[in-house]
Amino acid sequence: MQVAMIGDRIVPLAELEPIYYDRGIYFGDGVYEVVRSYEGKIFALEEHLQRFARNLSVIGIVGVDIDQIRSRIKKAFGAAGISNAKIYFHITRGSAPRSHTWEAELKPNFFLTVTELPDDTEEKTKGVAVSTHPDWRWKRCDIKSLNLLANVLARQDAAQKGCSEAILVDDTGLITEGAGSAFFAVFGQKLQTAPLAANILPSITRKFVIKAAKNVGLEVVEKSLTPQQAKDADELFIVVTTKDIVPVVEFDSKLIGDGKPGKYTKLLIQEFCSFTS
Amino acid sequence: MQVAMIGDRIVPLAELEPIYYDRGIYFGDGVYEVVRSYEGKIFALEEHLQRFARNLSVIGIVGVDIDQIRSRIKKAFGAAGISNAKIYFHITRGSAPRSHTWEAELKPNFFLTVTELPDDTEEKTKGVAVSTHPDWRWKRCDIKSLNLLANVLARQDAAQKGCSEAILVDDTGLITEGAGSAFFAVFGQKLQTAPLAANILPSITRKFVIKAAKNVGLEVVEKSLTPQQAKDADELFIVVTTKDIVPVVEFDSKLIGDGKPGKYTKLLIQEFCSFTS
Repeated sequence: MQVAMIGDRIVPLAELEPIYYDRGIYFGDGVYEVVRSYEGKIFALEEHLQRFARNLSVIGIVGVDIDQIRSRIKKAFGAAGISNAKIYFHITRGSAPRSHTWEAELKPNFFLTVTELPDDTEEKTKGVAVSTHPDWRWKRCDIKSLNLLANVLARQDAAQKGCSEAILVDDTGLITEGAGSAFFAVFGQKLQTAPLAANILPSITRKFVIKAAKNVGLEVVEKSLTPQQAKDADELFIVVTTKDIVPVVEFDSKLIGDGKPGKYTKLLIQEFCSFTS
Repeated sequence: MQVAMIGDRIVPLAELEPIYYDRGIYFGDGVYEVVRSYEGKIFALEEHLQRFARNLSVIGIVGVDIDQIRSRIKKAFGAAGISNAKIYFHITRGSAPRSHTWEAELKPNFFLTVTELPDDTEEKTKGVAVSTHPDWRWKRCDIKSLNLLANVLARQDAAQKGCSEAILVDDTGLITEGAGSAFFAVFGQKLQTAPLAANILPSITRKFVIKAAKNVGLEVVEKSLTPQQAKDADELFIVVTTKDIVPVVEFDSKLIGDGKPGKYTKLLIQEFCSFTS
């Protein structure tokens, strides 16, 4: 008799709940999104759904109805009744006996959580420290997949150094992005960030930050930078859906500027508010 | 109220079963092993447990008692009563609200299945076809982790081409290994395979194959090869725990040798039998 074992408990394989053989857990075979609400309004949902649909398609998960996903998100968000909420959702290819290849008829699994966002006032007003870590991720970081062990290990390394984020550095010595954020540097009136490529997640927040930058008179330069160049920047910040813009005041133990959030960073945070309110 | 949603069903987050927020599914934050039995005897269990312990340690999953894991494997294998069994097991860092960083006190989750191995006589006597695919995997393939989407996509691509395995080729044009196997080529009396490094899984079967190769008088060369060199080999084969040695008779549509399993490949299969019986 084929069996499974969960901790110390043996169960006949035939009686195992499908979540235990979800391809998400066997292979990380799925894609996810995180959206947030500001004061009861979900921000940039359509942009996230569009990216989600693209990612499903790129890894060959078919038959997902994006309208149904949108309805589910709205229904769960409504049920939660949380004003500043983090909405996480993923779709995996489905539950099946472990095999790298998949059958066309497999039914994808949908999972979502709505949680309360913690207060980020301190981070946003005082700024955070970041540290670098080698970018160990796979070659398709443009896909927002459940394969995140490299990100996890990098972020934990940062936390052990007292830092909020790990800034990933590729084999050629260039910064790609943060373990869970996009990375920006201000030099004079120029805003610099890595160009979008297969090794960078096309961040939705990045897109809005670039728009905000133009609104405040910054020239945007899409060009990768080195850790040394980052250390020499006038201002640094990271961007992520759940917190939009977070000033970086320390990079690998080097204070940036006067160790306080920079002038443009503050302007951009303000400008970003106009998008979300 | 914080909520989760599984398919169309909304549940309070507080009532969600821990398997749904296993870090294995959120991040692929875990490591796994596959062992098999030959006629009621598990092969190379200690070698697999040793690698498993190393991998747990490398990704910082602590507090796992390997003696307990060994007992569980034997107990489940005994309960299943399957003579030629595939035993899959993984440990994830545990269940926790989604956050890249983890708390030291998190309790790892253990999961295992014992299933019947399908008959592989045809593959082993006739050989299989393989096709190449870019190696999209992360930079720590020496860790047998649950981040396997690159392997999944490569293997599916191979299947769509009518092939049994994808042979991964890195950015410099060199073969690393198969999506779920190690890769070997025979040139005259030399057996060639990629050297172990961060981009190669230290395969247990590989170790036994190298031992077998020496027993049958083959010189072992640990040096990466290109797809063109593979096409020009006298013999090719892949090795994997569940099937030990499988002859490769076609590589990217090019017949290898006379399109039948090679002389040394057959000798090695025979020699491998002496280890497992």
